[in-house]
Amino acid sequence: MTDFAQITLIGMGLIGSSLARAIRSHGLKTRLVGCDSNPQHVAEARALNLVDQITSDPIDAVKSADLVILATPVGSYADLGARLCPVMKPGAILSDVGSVKASVVKTLQPLMRDDCHLIPGHPVAGTEQSGPKAGFSTLFDGRWCILTPPENTAPEKVRALEKFWQAIGSTVECMTPDHHDMVLAITSHLPHLIAYNIVGTARHLEEVTKSEVIKYSAGGFRDFTRIAASDPTMWRDVFLNNKDAVLEMLGRFTEDLTALQRSIRYDEGDKLFDLFDRTRRIRKQIIDAGQDEDVPDFGRHTDDIPD
Amino acid sequence: MTDFAQITLIGMGLIGSSLARAIRSHGLKTRLVGCDSNPQHVAEARALNLVDQITSDPIDAVKSADLVILATPVGSYADLGARLCPVMKPGAILSDVGSVKASVVKTLQPLMRDDCHLIPGHPVAGTEQSGPKAGFSTLFDGRWCILTPPENTAPEKVRALEKFWQAIGSTVECMTPDHHDMVLAITSHLPHLIAYNIVGTARHLEEVTKSEVIKYSAGGFRDFTRIAASDPTMWRDVFLNNKDAVLEMLGRFTEDLTALQRSIRYDEGDKLFDLFDRTRRIRKQIIDAGQDEDVPDFGRHTDDIPD
Repeated sequence: MTDFAQITLIGMGLIGSSLARAIRSHGLKTRLVGCDSNPQHVAEARALNLVDQITSDPIDAVKSADLVILATPVGSYADLGARLCPVMKPGAILSDVGSVKASVVKTLQPLMRDDCHLIPGHPVAGTEQSGPKAGFSTLFDGRWCILTPPENTAPEKVRALEKFWQAIGSTVECMTPDHHDMVLAITSHLPHLIAYNIVGTARHLEEVTKSEVIKYSAGGFRDFTRIAASDPTMWRDVFLNNKDAVLEMLGRFTEDLTALQRSIRYDEGDKLFDLFDRTRRIRKQIIDAGQDEDVPDFGRHTDDIPD
Repeated sequence: MTDFAQITLIGMGLIGSSLARAIRSHGLKTRLVGCDSNPQHVAEARALNLVDQITSDPIDAVKSADLVILATPVGSYADLGARLCPVMKPGAILSDVGSVKASVVKTLQPLMRDDCHLIPGHPVAGTEQSGPKAGFSTLFDGRWCILTPPENTAPEKVRALEKFWQAIGSTVECMTPDHHDMVLAITSHLPHLIAYNIVGTARHLEEVTKSEVIKYSAGGFRDFTRIAASDPTMWRDVFLNNKDAVLEMLGRFTEDLTALQRSIRYDEGDKLFDLFDRTRRIRKQIIDAGQDEDVPDFGRHTDDIPD
């Protein structure tokens, strides 16, 4: 059930195409329109029959939509907003799925007409893969979707968007854009940054060959390569658009790492043990909260039942 | 098939108990003796029927062994070596599974009798879990085991140990202890260090609550908590015993991270994109090399077949 007679998805990548699949698999009665500027994505979305109408023309895609969801890199929003806001249907909601929120409000709010409603959103879900073929219908099941409605947004519009995300399996929480950006800086942006960084460091070693890095990656490194395989355009835009919070978290991370480095240098085994012992517990809390599965090594050894 | 009439495993944790299971499941004909100083591990190993004989007395465990494998934290080797070397059977091999190798040679070599053979080893395999119940028989399947025999080690002894690891599914490579420690510093030790560190940083924030870190961990953070849930004693000993290589790799990592931080501060989007684009490729090479599975998000969405 949804209040939106037409939903338009701008961008048919991992998230946009997963939204299309989730809307269909949850039986939401709505006309579903997809739009992508990449001709290959358009062809794939058509071949996969993901939406009722697929087009490369965003103006055509949004003019009858009751809900428009931007699912493109956030660096594209300024241009898209300037083109779409003038032609949107009165009463329609403009939302998105971007991983940063304060810059999205700053970009889109000045472009909004008084009779339309900006309610930015962020489903905390994804994989390292990209494109229409990478999507799947259960991506949002049991995951959180954060909405950051500007003050004075009509409550019934926020409620309608909440109901939409709940209908495809998510739990919704509202917060300010600034708080969102701080929370995601530590839970998502910094993890990606240091994963990209260590993979970069490994590429430049002289003492260790690239084939050795690959052969012995099961020691831990391979976990980081998954995250560092995420979409480069999307992540460039995330870091450029959440600079303050990322730099703040990065400063704290580096400070802590320097202290840890010092403990190694001066053989402070007790300090190392103390940190390693505390961090162990947070894993259990994440599993207890249903945010990861209770299987060792991410279930890589699924063929084997422990004796 | 194995050349060892008796194999003794010192330590019945994740690795020791997995070795016992792998030896049994691959049908190696050998008398299998297990030893652990922790009474609960002894009881669990007995209940699980992991070995032919289980004891808490390492001297009793090793005296008839043709191959002794230390599978305890490397910080315990000095004491164990001093007690075990005098009572080992003439011609026996002393090996181990520790994640560092130069310090192991330095610790054990002076304790060795002329009629026994030190051949340190390191199976590059594991999970974040610990104890006899956490082990499983396929842990070493398709993984690499690195041996670091000192110069002048009898070649037939090295060959016998190689055959043992191959018989339980591993591929063996020999290298010097120093090179091993440099390779593993980047592929295993540094990834663990920065995972422990970011989880530590997240615990100390004032702006973001712990419950928010847990709720929104699916954005990337949860991946790091898996590694940061690894055994604290083992990892304390790794960092204290591979100080030089870890500090060297950490220095390079921090240097690269500082450059990345600067690119974010000065909006150098092209530099960010360039790094993020290059790192993506190494993931594919790891999958092509059979060192990780070709499933998005570590297969977390196994219930769902992409449409």
